Amino acid sequence: MKYMLFGESHGPAVGVVLEGVPPGIPLEEGLIRRELERRAPGKNRFSTPRREEDAFEILSGVFEGKTTGTPLCALIRNTDVKSGDYEKTRYLARPGHADYTGHVKYRGFEDYRGGGHFSGRLTAPLVFAGSVARQVLAGRSIAVGAHILEIHGKEDASFDPVNILPEQLAVVAGKAFPVLDDKCGTDMMLEIDQAREARDSVGGVVECAVLGLPAGAGAPGQDSAESILSRHLFAVPAVKGVSFGAGFRFSRMLGSEANDPIRQGEAGIILETNHSGGINGGITNAMPLVFSVVIRPTPSIGLPQRTVNLETGENAELIIEGRHDPCIVPRAVPVIEAAAALAVWEILEQSGEGAV
Amino acid sequence: MKYMLFGESHGPAVGVVLEGVPPGIPLEEGLIRRELERRAPGKNRFSTPRREEDAFEILSGVFEGKTTGTPLCALIRNTDVKSGDYEKTRYLARPGHADYTGHVKYRGFEDYRGGGHFSGRLTAPLVFAGSVARQVLAGRSIAVGAHILEIHGKEDASFDPVNILPEQLAVVAGKAFPVLDDKCGTDMMLEIDQAREARDSVGGVVECAVLGLPAGAGAPGQDSAESILSRHLFAVPAVKGVSFGAGFRFSRMLGSEANDPIRQGEAGIILETNHSGGINGGITNAMPLVFSVVIRPTPSIGLPQRTVNLETGENAELIIEGRHDPCIVPRAVPVIEAAAALAVWEILEQSGEGAV
Amino acid sequence: MKYMLFGESHGPAVGVVLEGVPPGIPLEEGLIRRELERRAPGKNRFSTPRREEDAFEILSGVFEGKTTGTPLCALIRNTDVKSGDYEKTRYLARPGHADYTGHVKYRGFEDYRGGGHFSGRLTAPLVFAGSVARQVLAGRSIAVGAHILEIHGKEDASFDPVNILPEQLAVVAGKAFPVLDDKCGTDMMLEIDQAREARDSVGGVVECAVLGLPAGAGAPGQDSAESILSRHLFAVPAVKGVSFGAGFRFSRMLGSEANDPIRQGEAGIILETNHSGGINGGITNAMPLVFSVVIRPTPSIGLPQRTVNLETGENAELIIEGRHDPCIVPRAVPVIEAAAALAVWEILEQSGEGAV
Amino acid sequence: MKYMLFGESHGPAVGVVLEGVPPGIPLEEGLIRRELERRAPGKNRFSTPRREEDAFEILSGVFEGKTTGTPLCALIRNTDVKSGDYEKTRYLARPGHADYTGHVKYRGFEDYRGGGHFSGRLTAPLVFAGSVARQVLAGRSIAVGAHILEIHGKEDASFDPVNILPEQLAVVAGKAFPVLDDKCGTDMMLEIDQAREARDSVGGVVECAVLGLPAGAGAPGQDSAESILSRHLFAVPAVKGVSFGAGFRFSRMLGSEANDPIRQGEAGIILETNHSGGINGGITNAMPLVFSVVIRPTPSIGLPQRTVNLETGENAELIIEGRHDPCIVPRAVPVIEAAAALAVWEILEQSGEGAV
Repeated sequence: MKYMLFGESHGPAVGVVLEGVPPGIPLEEGLIRRELERRAPGKNRFSTPRREEDAFEILSGVFEGKTTGTPLCALIRNTDVKSGDYEKTRYLARPGHADYTGHVKYRGFEDYRGGGHFSGRLTAPLVFAGSVARQVLAGRSIAVGAHILEIHGKEDASFDPVNILPEQLAVVAGKAFPVLDDKCGTDMMLEIDQAREARDSVGGVVECAVLGLPAGAGAPGQDSAESILSRHLFAVPAVKGVSFGAGFRFSRMLGSEANDPIRQGEAGIILETNHSGGINGGITNAMPLVFSVVIRPTPSIGLPQRTVNLETGENAELIIEGRHDPCIVPRAVPVIEAAAALAVWEILEQSGEGAV
Repeated sequence: MKYMLFGESHGPAVGVVLEGVPPGIPLEEGLIRRELERRAPGKNRFSTPRREEDAFEILSGVFEGKTTGTPLCALIRNTDVKSGDYEKTRYLARPGHADYTGHVKYRGFEDYRGGGHFSGRLTAPLVFAGSVARQVLAGRSIAVGAHILEIHGKEDASFDPVNILPEQLAVVAGKAFPVLDDKCGTDMMLEIDQAREARDSVGGVVECAVLGLPAGAGAPGQDSAESILSRHLFAVPAVKGVSFGAGFRFSRMLGSEANDPIRQGEAGIILETNHSGGINGGITNAMPLVFSVVIRPTPSIGLPQRTVNLETGENAELIIEGRHDPCIVPRAVPVIEAAAALAVWEILEQSGEGAV
Repeated sequence: MKYMLFGESHGPAVGVVLEGVPPGIPLEEGLIRRELERRAPGKNRFSTPRREEDAFEILSGVFEGKTTGTPLCALIRNTDVKSGDYEKTRYLARPGHADYTGHVKYRGFEDYRGGGHFSGRLTAPLVFAGSVARQVLAGRSIAVGAHILEIHGKEDASFDPVNILPEQLAVVAGKAFPVLDDKCGTDMMLEIDQAREARDSVGGVVECAVLGLPAGAGAPGQDSAESILSRHLFAVPAVKGVSFGAGFRFSRMLGSEANDPIRQGEAGIILETNHSGGINGGITNAMPLVFSVVIRPTPSIGLPQRTVNLETGENAELIIEGRHDPCIVPRAVPVIEAAAALAVWEILEQSGEGAV
Repeated sequence: MKYMLFGESHGPAVGVVLEGVPPGIPLEEGLIRRELERRAPGKNRFSTPRREEDAFEILSGVFEGKTTGTPLCALIRNTDVKSGDYEKTRYLARPGHADYTGHVKYRGFEDYRGGGHFSGRLTAPLVFAGSVARQVLAGRSIAVGAHILEIHGKEDASFDPVNILPEQLAVVAGKAFPVLDDKCGTDMMLEIDQAREARDSVGGVVECAVLGLPAGAGAPGQDSAESILSRHLFAVPAVKGVSFGAGFRFSRMLGSEANDPIRQGEAGIILETNHSGGINGGITNAMPLVFSVVIRPTPSIGLPQRTVNLETGENAELIIEGRHDPCIVPRAVPVIEAAAALAVWEILEQSGEGAV
């Protein structure tokens, strides 16, 4: 399995080519649309009123409703595009964005409009690919689900890492604001409201679980389950940290607390606790695979910011106008799930386990 | 650049083959030995009294003292090996280790002695490869250095991410206990002592900086600087989390705090703060690249643990005898530096920047 | 540099995503169209009267007429598609085609119409990608050109491997029937005419040269110039053999004949002969890189053929109706050039030589 | 599956690291030794009297006689090394060898002695890896075997491509001079004798068959069975051409001759002829996979040759002294088999078919 994303925010289209899809999977376009809808902006007061058209066209790799096994290309046209918004600030690098670094790497030839290829818009085809991955994994009863664990210091309940049910994932995925404890969600929404009013933004943490993985997938070294997952997750814009199981809390634990006791259960070996997050030595242990990612606050804010004009080299002040999410964490939830599904698929393949 | 590690803890040798080394680098074996010495156990009271022989033999890729550009193989023979220690607990999977997952993946054919290929012993050839990488990077004035940021809740000072000097890295690398603030180090050592006395162990956090990187290295997507670094870092045993810049603290920041203002400096563009950890959109911005990794507490502890006998399937109690580090964090510091150096080398290569 | 082709002969579109294009290349769409025109069927009596629309749409990676450096996606819609032609022979595997092998690999879920993803139609986006590659290489004064060396036993003159001029390549590329000696071309055309009249087909050999390569590109082992070129060339349907320089004639030569004497020329080291085809030890020697590929006769012929019905498992007779090339060798010339250009680009990249 | 070869002809050792070996294979070292013996020089009058020690040491990846599944490293020490032979001709690039191209690529830092990393000596660890691959494939009843098809114009009988028996491969592998028809072998030996007496050398063709492959392995595009095989085969020094099935003879065939009729056989679908060499559309069809490779005449000859002194840039005459094979084709037979076995293993893996 491998995929390539392509497209720019304000070009003709964004899309993805996905190689290695097993043949014969009845692709449910409704499921894909639902995932894209979860990611789409403009749904509620917590996201930009800009309304993207995320209608996708499948160009290849599907025949008579089923995957063929040959490369699957899907296209999402860009429609709600106002390039004029970006002309006047073309050379004013937006702090926290990739404007400056992209300008250096691409020597000034990048499509600067709306962040170009760095735009969060590229997460739409990623969610498409992830939805295909989830349908592939569903054939092995593997489920992926995430929720918002924290926004600007306000925390949700955590998954109970030894006991997560697929139904629980389905419930939280169906929520407009995906948290386990809706009261915590209310507190988070208040933080987002305050940030919007202050023309500022907030970040947060997404916690994600993968259920149904067999023991023995993954490897030591650079093909470890953690290596493959983190490679996919850090490909998502704004992700700045990834941790597995107890994650950074390991630094405050004793070995006797951190080690998960191993027991013979009714249906095979289980661990009594799951601080390892389902992975030991880079290899899955059949417990829920649990990880967290931190999402930085949306770099686009309405407050004045200090920057440099990349054309003239002079210092400048930038005020980003227009419509921007004060918090992308809710929309990031299905994106993280998508990246995780693609990574898990790759882990199974690398381990010589056919995905279906 | 790519490398392969090979070997088992109690086999004849461990080693590495490193491809893509530029020709003509005068390899300083003294520098390699110094790095291996930093990683070696048995140096002081904080690590196992077991004394490994880390004498390496270079088998290829070096001629007349300089690298040839062809694959470089280095071998470290295993000498202080007492297999007998492991026979009686062969089938008792050690909690927190890869015994159980490796047993499933390798179907019982793994070399179980001392963790086999999963052993921390494999970090010796990794440090070797990292030392070569550091000498390659030194030709471009790129320096890598790390310190212990936290052990069992006791914290060191952090790097000032906008102002780290190569000399500072050299000073901390020279310390027997590599912390920025030695008083903090004393507190940490106390934690380690307590853990040893309790036959327990503690984990911690390592903070690492890479200095001298140009702007423009890296890419969006799965070749992002973060993706490549995390892939290498999660290949190190016991690493369970990786974060860049402000990392998980981003979840408590506002966008206006998190965005690093861009300014025209005397020697080019700089950022006034460095919450991004030197990377935007997966691409370096020429600020110090700063990241943290969390190291779980050493799984080998002297206390009784609940486990399963993998041969009989029955529940059992395990007491790990022998000599084990109550804390591997100090020894992990040069290992993290090695993985980082190899990753940075790969990032530069993937970006079309010759490494020297 | 890497690329993914996608699409099926009778699906909505075929296309390509090309990663690693350097930024700032002024993409000349006229050159791309010219290459696609050379590949297009229906141009003359030697090819099928079916008229494909090869109009391409660039969806990403180009901005204000220049490449951006981000993934470049191009789409070619399928228009002249008559699926009805294929329904009745759906399960009759065409000998010489991939119908049977594709049916096994894709378990019956493949898009069988017109060969699906195995169709020669996929060479259109390959030629697109190759044309981009040629424009990248042109920035380094590297030129790629091929001619028909043989069709059904009738041979053209060979390149003089020590003395090929870029102008010579341009002249032969401009010909409707690309041979060095037009009289040989007349003989070949007669063979094609005879095959068409007999409802049969003929194969041939294409000879290709790459000019302007520096010495030192390539590597020993699986990244050898020959390995990379042959990997790309065998990706072209109907290619069944690849040889470099004297190729299979080496088996009749003495070492004293085969070794190319090395001399100091006016502009540096040259070889007096070029039996090695510009490559020694997998690495270029700055002489013209010359290779030949053999193209099997078009498997689609109008004569009755013995086959099996893949649905019923019974033996059957197949008569392929409709319009088919009696010889695809002339159309294969720009395809081989495209594959070679992409391979050479990869060779330069792998060697750490920026492509522009 | 992937492997890395390392070592130089006159360095301490040559070797290989092989990743992805399935666990639990009872590695028969006798079989490995036999393959190395077939490759070894000094066996008879047709090869150099230089006697290499090919004793191998397995450093990792094997435990209690069986593969563990972790990287397998094997080492072959260089013993019969006389570096002094090479000092005086250090800068005289040997025509036909990689001396000049290696000197450019590695900027003069290469180990020049005996060809260094380009030496045919590196085929010893390749044969080691190939022998492991053959033992892996044997678990699926897949056999690989080759013979000399041609030496300096003298031809052996060809395999009957629709009917090759594993026993036939075993018989020819056991011969000191591996040809199907020993009378043809006598003619070839005469050619070799003449070349030796003339201080010259001769090349030839090796024909190789792979039996027992299932239908459906491989893929269209750059992962085609032909692409993977040719990538591995062109990694073998002196290989300058690779063709499948009828190969370059396709250029003289009609489609009606070239297409292999498909029939329902007793044990499933078979082809009546096998001009395709067991591969259609890059995918295996369960017929014997048959290919040929051409081996250039040994570049090391005793006759005076024109060259350049790479240090001074002046023209020079070179006489290569010492002991050299007048024909490496017989010793190349097990090397081609090894490369083929490794490639077939990779093809099966890429196709999602576990190798055992």
